[in-house]
Amino acid sequence: MVVGFEKAVSATKSVVTSVKKAPTTLSSDRVINFARGDPTMYESYWRQMGEKCTVVIPGHNLMSYFSNGGHFCWFLMPELDRAIRRLHCVVGNAVVDDDRYIVVGNGSTQLFQAVLYALSSSYDPDTEPLSVVAAAPFYSSYPEETEFLRSGLYKWAGDAYSFDKDGAYIEVVTSPNNPDGAIREAVVNRDGGKLIHDLAYYWPQYTPITGKADNDIMLFTFSKATGHAGSRIGWAIVKDIAVATKMVKFMELSSIGVSKESQLRAAKILEVISDDCQNSAPDKEENFFEYGQRLMSDRWEKLREVVKRNGVFSLPKYPQDYCNFIGKYTDPSPAFAWLKSKDGLNCDNLLRELKIVTRGGTNFGVDSNYTRISMLSPDEEFNLLLERLSAIQGTIINGNN
Amino acid sequence: MVVGFEKAVSATKSVVTSVKKAPTTLSSDRVINFARGDPTMYESYWRQMGEKCTVVIPGHNLMSYFSNGGHFCWFLMPELDRAIRRLHCVVGNAVVDDDRYIVVGNGSTQLFQAVLYALSSSYDPDTEPLSVVAAAPFYSSYPEETEFLRSGLYKWAGDAYSFDKDGAYIEVVTSPNNPDGAIREAVVNRDGGKLIHDLAYYWPQYTPITGKADNDIMLFTFSKATGHAGSRIGWAIVKDIAVATKMVKFMELSSIGVSKESQLRAAKILEVISDDCQNSAPDKEENFFEYGQRLMSDRWEKLREVVKRNGVFSLPKYPQDYCNFIGKYTDPSPAFAWLKSKDGLNCDNLLRELKIVTRGGTNFGVDSNYTRISMLSPDEEFNLLLERLSAIQGTIINGNN
Repeated sequence: MVVGFEKAVSATKSVVTSVKKAPTTLSSDRVINFARGDPTMYESYWRQMGEKCTVVIPGHNLMSYFSNGGHFCWFLMPELDRAIRRLHCVVGNAVVDDDRYIVVGNGSTQLFQAVLYALSSSYDPDTEPLSVVAAAPFYSSYPEETEFLRSGLYKWAGDAYSFDKDGAYIEVVTSPNNPDGAIREAVVNRDGGKLIHDLAYYWPQYTPITGKADNDIMLFTFSKATGHAGSRIGWAIVKDIAVATKMVKFMELSSIGVSKESQLRAAKILEVISDDCQNSAPDKEENFFEYGQRLMSDRWEKLREVVKRNGVFSLPKYPQDYCNFIGKYTDPSPAFAWLKSKDGLNCDNLLRELKIVTRGGTNFGVDSNYTRISMLSPDEEFNLLLERLSAIQGTIINGNN
Repeated sequence: MVVGFEKAVSATKSVVTSVKKAPTTLSSDRVINFARGDPTMYESYWRQMGEKCTVVIPGHNLMSYFSNGGHFCWFLMPELDRAIRRLHCVVGNAVVDDDRYIVVGNGSTQLFQAVLYALSSSYDPDTEPLSVVAAAPFYSSYPEETEFLRSGLYKWAGDAYSFDKDGAYIEVVTSPNNPDGAIREAVVNRDGGKLIHDLAYYWPQYTPITGKADNDIMLFTFSKATGHAGSRIGWAIVKDIAVATKMVKFMELSSIGVSKESQLRAAKILEVISDDCQNSAPDKEENFFEYGQRLMSDRWEKLREVVKRNGVFSLPKYPQDYCNFIGKYTDPSPAFAWLKSKDGLNCDNLLRELKIVTRGGTNFGVDSNYTRISMLSPDEEFNLLLERLSAIQGTIINGNN
């Protein structure tokens, strides 16, 4: 049911032939893929930054398994720990007081699994695996990441809205949510519940920063914060040292830690962002988040305009809010557009007809009249998206769902 | 039962007080840790190499999740694929013809788990989990890596020598073996068996290269090949594309691929080694493997001398063999010394008395009169080890096991 990361680009197999296209001279035959959240749009920003983000690594550096021998998270480089804490302080999006523990992972994907292990590893073979739920629509990879090893410790139990079992459970709260950008809170709220807050998108370019998140277990990722997906760096901020220590154990057994090259580079880039954010020179340039927020707002404005004009789809509406970081009211501009077909058509198939590959609603636990479109592609592809969506006329014909 | 990677350094808690120590002026109170195989001894070689192994990574590079879009292993960087194949050709230790598939992982630790998944994921809830065995003494992390998530797909079934169940199973063949350096073949040899060959130590510095390994699934790791443990790079060479593809799926679900910074650096360093090995200039310097082989031989000679002199322990004997790479007969010089107490004492405890931390035999599925000592420490620590072992007189008193 759940489609993996590498969803086949099979737009040509689409069967829905239901959209009247306006003639266009700009159209190309190229299939464009918006199914993945590959954040390549930030590349031009980092290119402009020139050498100040460059890392240089001699052959004899970073050789040991260990980064921080006496520390509970022995593979976490101290410079990355510092850079993460500093950035959260500068942005004001999470509490990182000294009594919070940071665990680094190979992306937040690995950390999510480390948390499942940490919260369920007091294993009793006579009890049922711990239920893991999230409110639909939920991130399409949670079910498969939870299920693929058929763990006896935990199991996927679906939509949090329909969860009605007694006893212990884990609820994943993704806020802003992937796919629909909503600001979320836990929905089950029963005794025995443990929460994982996936805050991958709680950064100023995606949503107004309204306060410091202060949850028990918070996940962040370098991929979505700065666009460096290839580095595979994520981090967790954890209140309970016992949970953090079990997560470290998971990381040890799963991969004996995390690439030091990536950690070094992440530390450097996060420090540059913090420096730029704290630069108060009158002629200072836009910092990374201001740049990202401007770019994302601009994209959302253009997308809303096209969607409004063609009349075929709708997009969620988000309340404006005061962003403590930007220092003014801003509109949310999520990393994904959660597109709904007004006529109940299979939205993913409909777009494949236009050679636009997206990730359909059923992957996220909801109906196929929804689909998710990445807003993080390079400019050229985003412009092709707008062009192809514009080419759909206001009327759907032969509308078979 | 199995002690994790971060075994506590608790030498002071040792209870065996059974060794008569010769007075020594050199002794220090420092606890020295040989429980881990942290290959820091190679650092000085790489320092000498200067800038030719340095990588420089600008802030806008390596940002995408993808390395190689159309390739089955979409996160493997093509330059790393080439560098791995070239090095194996140069060394002659594994077949890497074009019909062999390379999968990169966050160390061979993650790849080991990817193979377990790949070989067992045709999941049938009505059948037993697939048994995973290895001949004792086996690498101390295999049991815990296999068991920690209580997978319904596979389970640890212990020593291959005593495995007598019918049906499918997986046998891990580690050659040269960790901990004891033995050259190994499969021991179960029954219908339905699938083999994983862990060849982490099949490099010229550890053992004579007598031919190209040509097994179905072979695991290698950058950590032990060159000493770059902090990079967390391992690779598998796989014959069956279906197995390789399932391993990629595991990597996708487990960590969405592997650090590109590490891959880039590994590619660079492996290419430098291959260049040096192929340099035929008359005044050329020692290449990395010649250096490593000389260093390891020298350490083994010194260790054997000390062990012989004090009379308390014994070490395995290995047959000399012709190394195709070095071009002469060489003695095996494994990455670990597998030390046995002649008097049946608890060898790990006995050494803790001397503030030498090792990993005891029970971690490897055998008796406590064995212990494993890393041979890959920095010179200073290795010399302290020799000094402390020399300080043991030939007689054990109050020998309680």
